Amino acid sequence: MVRLRPSVHYGGKEDIVMASTEFQSVPHLTTALKGPLHQLEAHLLAHQVDIENWFRTQWGLAPPPFYASVDIRNAGFKLAPVDTNLFPAGFNNLNPAFEPLCVQALHAAIDRWVPSAMRVLLIPESHSRNIPYLESVAALRDMLIKAGLEVRIGSLSEELHIPRKLPLPSGRTIRLEPVTRTGNRVAVGDFSPCFVLLNNDLSGGQPTLDDLEQTVIPHPRLGWLERLKSVHFTHYRDVAREFATMVDIDAWLIDPFFRNCGEINFMKREGDECLAENAETLLAQIRRKYREFKVDKPPFLVIKADSGTYGMAVMTIHHADELRELNRKQRTRMSSTKGGQPVTRVIMQEGIYTFETWGAQQTVAEPVVCLIDRHVVGGFYRVHTDRGENENLNAPGARFEPLAFAHSCITPDRDREPDAQPNRFYAYGVLARLAILAAAREIAQSEAAETECAEEAPAQAHG
Amino acid sequence: MVRLRPSVHYGGKEDIVMASTEFQSVPHLTTALKGPLHQLEAHLLAHQVDIENWFRTQWGLAPPPFYASVDIRNAGFKLAPVDTNLFPAGFNNLNPAFEPLCVQALHAAIDRWVPSAMRVLLIPESHSRNIPYLESVAALRDMLIKAGLEVRIGSLSEELHIPRKLPLPSGRTIRLEPVTRTGNRVAVGDFSPCFVLLNNDLSGGQPTLDDLEQTVIPHPRLGWLERLKSVHFTHYRDVAREFATMVDIDAWLIDPFFRNCGEINFMKREGDECLAENAETLLAQIRRKYREFKVDKPPFLVIKADSGTYGMAVMTIHHADELRELNRKQRTRMSSTKGGQPVTRVIMQEGIYTFETWGAQQTVAEPVVCLIDRHVVGGFYRVHTDRGENENLNAPGARFEPLAFAHSCITPDRDREPDAQPNRFYAYGVLARLAILAAAREIAQSEAAETECAEEAPAQAHG
Repeated sequence: MVRLRPSVHYGGKEDIVMASTEFQSVPHLTTALKGPLHQLEAHLLAHQVDIENWFRTQWGLAPPPFYASVDIRNAGFKLAPVDTNLFPAGFNNLNPAFEPLCVQALHAAIDRWVPSAMRVLLIPESHSRNIPYLESVAALRDMLIKAGLEVRIGSLSEELHIPRKLPLPSGRTIRLEPVTRTGNRVAVGDFSPCFVLLNNDLSGGQPTLDDLEQTVIPHPRLGWLERLKSVHFTHYRDVAREFATMVDIDAWLIDPFFRNCGEINFMKREGDECLAENAETLLAQIRRKYREFKVDKPPFLVIKADSGTYGMAVMTIHHADELRELNRKQRTRMSSTKGGQPVTRVIMQEGIYTFETWGAQQTVAEPVVCLIDRHVVGGFYRVHTDRGENENLNAPGARFEPLAFAHSCITPDRDREPDAQPNRFYAYGVLARLAILAAAREIAQSEAAETECAEEAPAQAHG
Repeated sequence: MVRLRPSVHYGGKEDIVMASTEFQSVPHLTTALKGPLHQLEAHLLAHQVDIENWFRTQWGLAPPPFYASVDIRNAGFKLAPVDTNLFPAGFNNLNPAFEPLCVQALHAAIDRWVPSAMRVLLIPESHSRNIPYLESVAALRDMLIKAGLEVRIGSLSEELHIPRKLPLPSGRTIRLEPVTRTGNRVAVGDFSPCFVLLNNDLSGGQPTLDDLEQTVIPHPRLGWLERLKSVHFTHYRDVAREFATMVDIDAWLIDPFFRNCGEINFMKREGDECLAENAETLLAQIRRKYREFKVDKPPFLVIKADSGTYGMAVMTIHHADELRELNRKQRTRMSSTKGGQPVTRVIMQEGIYTFETWGAQQTVAEPVVCLIDRHVVGGFYRVHTDRGENENLNAPGARFEPLAFAHSCITPDRDREPDAQPNRFYAYGVLARLAILAAAREIAQSEAAETECAEEAPAQAHG
């Protein structure tokens, strides 16, 4: 692991180091931020009243998704969301003390989307061997039950023909049942749900869920098969600009630059030059900003499949030439994503350093914020011992240690320093809400598009 | 203190005893309930899906109050709300771990009532010497700030002419400012609030707040000066019946019998006979129910001013004759309530034993549940060493020790016994929600009455 220290020149800020506390294994930030991020956090605190008021207005214009998680990277000089997941996992990683917060937010989400619902069919990803993921599904199921729903778990796996019980290390048990479809309704056994809650991004395409009479949340078109990161980040760019104007900061401090390329075929080397030219433009843009903000670090780019997921088909480059010199292994890795979907469009995003580290080993840590409805219900750090500060922490096979946030993200304390933990988590919560606001606009836009071709679209109803 | 043990005959249930745990001073119930309450809790758990669904529908019909607290009494064989306060105190008594739950619920309440508000004027009770009360006001203020509002505290006290800072034992400080009125707006100094949040039940009448352009929450007509307990409990009776039908229990298990008398003058002995006759009828009704449920205890009544508050003008009787034989001291005590308001109407309510006790001394404890919007955000026990199981624990000068609930009221656990702590607190939360649903209907009805005389009513707006 490259142990880079942020030897940057922004006002005396040295680094962000979290000290391990054995109590709850929750990280502490031991070194105060003194740089622009400190200023950003101070700005967010100073503008809290405007921020919360603005969010209230925004949720009135575009309702937030049922649930989501947002990966955030904290570069000290910059804080930005890098991925917005509408099929969130990691509920098992949240601080158990905040379970009531999740349950309360679920009440709000149910009330908004399916107020008359009593029975939900939760459909998780089909890979049943990922134990941490199944723990997250079990934690989510338990919270849905506590919120007053009858819950069953349906699998879309073609290999599952009879119900299967999976005991989990936490002591919880998951019961997976094969989903059956009769007419325009799905069921498991004799359980006919009022609505389907997807925790499966449907990367493989799922005709079973097409044109259902039951409400499906999130709408299947929000799976990564149809959703484009570039569309999401275009909305995010708008959101970030509006927000930055309101709190009087440079939007770049919360918004990674990006460009996208269509018509790519990594194996056939089609589109390589487009990629390289875009990469050069993007790196030059970032370099200018780094000079402006006196950031003494090499800029880098993260290149991802535009509709990819799961950290597949992701690479990091520092020079445009790297794209002209990809080897066969790199090309193969970039050419397909989850479920073997071919990659034809990519998004290249300004890489954001992660300067948060944890423990004596100064392990790189990436915050993940969980949201239910418009409420930030908690979060955790992905802590990865084998990766550097400029690498993707959500790569295939990436083993990370989850570290629950010690505080909620909604209890800022104006009497304390802007970088005190509750205020840092508040900043994360604000950034995460900006990301789901972008998702909300994306969803509203895709619904508007759907309404335009309403003849084709099925009526959505809940039982 | 009369140390009565509930030697009742309902299925082996002996008593409910809470053991002291020094950890957080939070009570534990050490003896499992085996009687009808256990059955009631089991019923609530078994019907949780219907209950939550029913509440969602109900809040759609009558919106919940901004905030409230509900006093509950747990007689083992019976569990019922005995007071619903729309100007709640005790926020300082909540488990600090649930502060995020309060803040999140405040977001919901602000969104429902004053979505565009940024500045709130909090108006507490004028008695500035009650330190625990001021701690509650400070705790509420801090949560409102965390929810993203600018908050100032305005006093209606005629003795306050300049701002006054009060340091509190918790380390918090309260700054009280005199409320000024210009035209149809109130302010403190140059702070012009978007809305007024009342934590003052206006027992003394408050022309300062009449016909304001700013929204006042709760509406001043919900102060006890205008509100009648008998109206509230009439709504509660309807709510309890509907609910009891749904969960298939006898409504009496959650609903205290009551009757009310108007045209009372305790000093002039007017209405004594009406009171005594009603008391006889009521005691006979209760006696029949006690026989039916095999409760081997003497029934008793609590008699309160119909529009009273603060535990003033409250008395307990076991025989109707006691009402015919009131002495001068008793008559004086019953004849006026807070602010010297005369008592002309009373409500007599079935007394509910409190069989929850705490600590080695078996101290009587009464649960108080706090709600913000439709969310149960926590609660605490009033623990009083000097009082018996059939006495009012909220009497003038009553010193109680608050004991925060250890668990949230919204995380029932169907895998555990019905009387496990999270399930007991869930039951309390359900009962408290039934009480605020009654209040919601009461508010909706008073609003409908207001609309009928709309010519007189001022337009409500928020800035």
